[in-house]
Amino acid sequence: MSPLVKHETREKQGHIGGRTGAATEARLAELITEDLARVEALFARELTSDLPNVNELVTHVGKFRGKMLRPMLVLLSGLAAGVDESRPNGDEPLGVEHITAASVVEMVHMATLVHDDILDGADVRRKGATINHLHGNEAAVLLGDFLISHAYHLCSSLDSQAASRHIAHATNIVCEGELLQNYNRGNWRLDEETYYTIIYRKTAALTEVCCRLGAMFSTHKRARVEALAHYGRQVGLAFQIVDDILDICGQTKTVGKSLGTDIEKGKLTLPLIHFLQHAAPQHRELLMGLLESTEHDRVEHVRQLVAPSESIQFARREAERLIAEAIEALAILPESPARGALVEAARYVTARER
Amino acid sequence: MSPLVKHETREKQGHIGGRTGAATEARLAELITEDLARVEALFARELTSDLPNVNELVTHVGKFRGKMLRPMLVLLSGLAAGVDESRPNGDEPLGVEHITAASVVEMVHMATLVHDDILDGADVRRKGATINHLHGNEAAVLLGDFLISHAYHLCSSLDSQAASRHIAHATNIVCEGELLQNYNRGNWRLDEETYYTIIYRKTAALTEVCCRLGAMFSTHKRARVEALAHYGRQVGLAFQIVDDILDICGQTKTVGKSLGTDIEKGKLTLPLIHFLQHAAPQHRELLMGLLESTEHDRVEHVRQLVAPSESIQFARREAERLIAEAIEALAILPESPARGALVEAARYVTARER
Repeated sequence: MSPLVKHETREKQGHIGGRTGAATEARLAELITEDLARVEALFARELTSDLPNVNELVTHVGKFRGKMLRPMLVLLSGLAAGVDESRPNGDEPLGVEHITAASVVEMVHMATLVHDDILDGADVRRKGATINHLHGNEAAVLLGDFLISHAYHLCSSLDSQAASRHIAHATNIVCEGELLQNYNRGNWRLDEETYYTIIYRKTAALTEVCCRLGAMFSTHKRARVEALAHYGRQVGLAFQIVDDILDICGQTKTVGKSLGTDIEKGKLTLPLIHFLQHAAPQHRELLMGLLESTEHDRVEHVRQLVAPSESIQFARREAERLIAEAIEALAILPESPARGALVEAARYVTARER
Repeated sequence: MSPLVKHETREKQGHIGGRTGAATEARLAELITEDLARVEALFARELTSDLPNVNELVTHVGKFRGKMLRPMLVLLSGLAAGVDESRPNGDEPLGVEHITAASVVEMVHMATLVHDDILDGADVRRKGATINHLHGNEAAVLLGDFLISHAYHLCSSLDSQAASRHIAHATNIVCEGELLQNYNRGNWRLDEETYYTIIYRKTAALTEVCCRLGAMFSTHKRARVEALAHYGRQVGLAFQIVDDILDICGQTKTVGKSLGTDIEKGKLTLPLIHFLQHAAPQHRELLMGLLESTEHDRVEHVRQLVAPSESIQFARREAERLIAEAIEALAILPESPARGALVEAARYVTARER
């Protein structure tokens, strides 16, 4: 265990011990409040259209706005990597490249959320009201495309191609991850390795590039860039595992989105993969029967079966292991408030309940 | 009328008078066969994945491949603009930028075709077989995203940001055009001005950028770049008007795709807008009644009503006017086989039956 991890563990046992999600977010935001405001302003400016109906739809997109996790990763990585570096623009630790990249990754992320909302026939009926409100599936497709296009457009405003290249490379991987996941819907033999391939590609490739770009724009020290990229990757993997656990164990009220959707869409996640391999034989058979059944309450039955099982603990330990690795990777960076915030952000990933 | 137009008119009355679509395509391809092959190779290389299931889906995309109109516009514009220019790479009139941009625009175009295929509930049922084959709407969304992502990725491989900026700007406009069109579905009062805004954005913005980029990579002479951009814009507008005419007057067998889809989707096009404003009052009422009806054969009735009308001639004349303007714009370029091919390509737009 690195000195850094020890230090942070002490800190956790001390005054940060009783942190809540909201407190963590507030503490993180403190460091980068002004920069996040610049990100939001740039974001809004880029998406403004001369067509009123387009602006109306973009406003709808507001409801997909999340915790700004990805912009935060860009900004904090920039601060943490650039601690003792002299920057061309003097006093400002974060430059226009950081703000631009942070806006771009949030736009990409929102596009994936909007496109995830394109549902098959059954879901269209169930969620009729929302879809109609947005003028149908077509509008959701187009709106996602609009966000993606503007993300690349904004990215191309930078002098160097570096950000465009890295982001387009990451989105290639994200699309492949989504395609691989979609291809494996209903594959009850999905193994852990393929699961990790999917979640690396669909989630962690983007968090990795967030940290990589933030660092790249602040330092030429390759070790720092790679350390932060590694941090971003492990945090992304853990984040997705926790998301998959919450899909089974979470309370709809707390999580704030419909749960059990992985099961409904035939997507095997880590707890289910573990359960199908390690639970008592009768339990495995029961789960397999539920996965293959067409009963309308099968999703709730699966959740009731798996939620109290050892498989959830297994998945949680995996997420914690990844978070420990992420924090470990930060050890080579000089100590700084930004590094501390990244440690805290990583811990929050496994602590979160939404 | 410019000397160029006179010359080309003579040519039309001469040996090109009896041209067919196939002959025109062959003649166009002659100039750029090798370069088109380079475009296709780059295209295939960019889309190759290390995931077998992704490659399988990409192969499916092959069926969306069209006439390579957009890559041709890039390449021919590059040749026509660079006729008497010295190029850094000596003998080769077209460089890696042309080949790259040509692949990128075709990828963007294919992405729009794939996403256009995302259909509402009714159409999903009607085209069930195809959709199932592609693992549902979700796969179509993801495949389109994959193509878009790779388009920008390929674009970012160029040294300069210029192509990325122009293409992302164009795709912003394309998305807005599609959103505006979608917003106006079922708006029977759509006017000509809004129609032109829609078709400029959804179609002509991309053909314009094809010609602009092709020219930009071959010459610094601004007048040539603007002339070719203007050509691309007018050709794109005419192309879309002809497409809209064919949706009403075409034969399914010749056109090779299902017709009447504009009517079915509540999209007013130029002939219908003209008809609703200028046909005999009883005819207008009849059309309005059909548009608002829910009868299953209403689309065929609309086609039978509008196809023989003056409104089709009106739309055709508009397309011809735009094509004449496109050809006129080329007059400032030095005479060359590529310029001749662009003239011929423009004429083919109004002559085509598919």
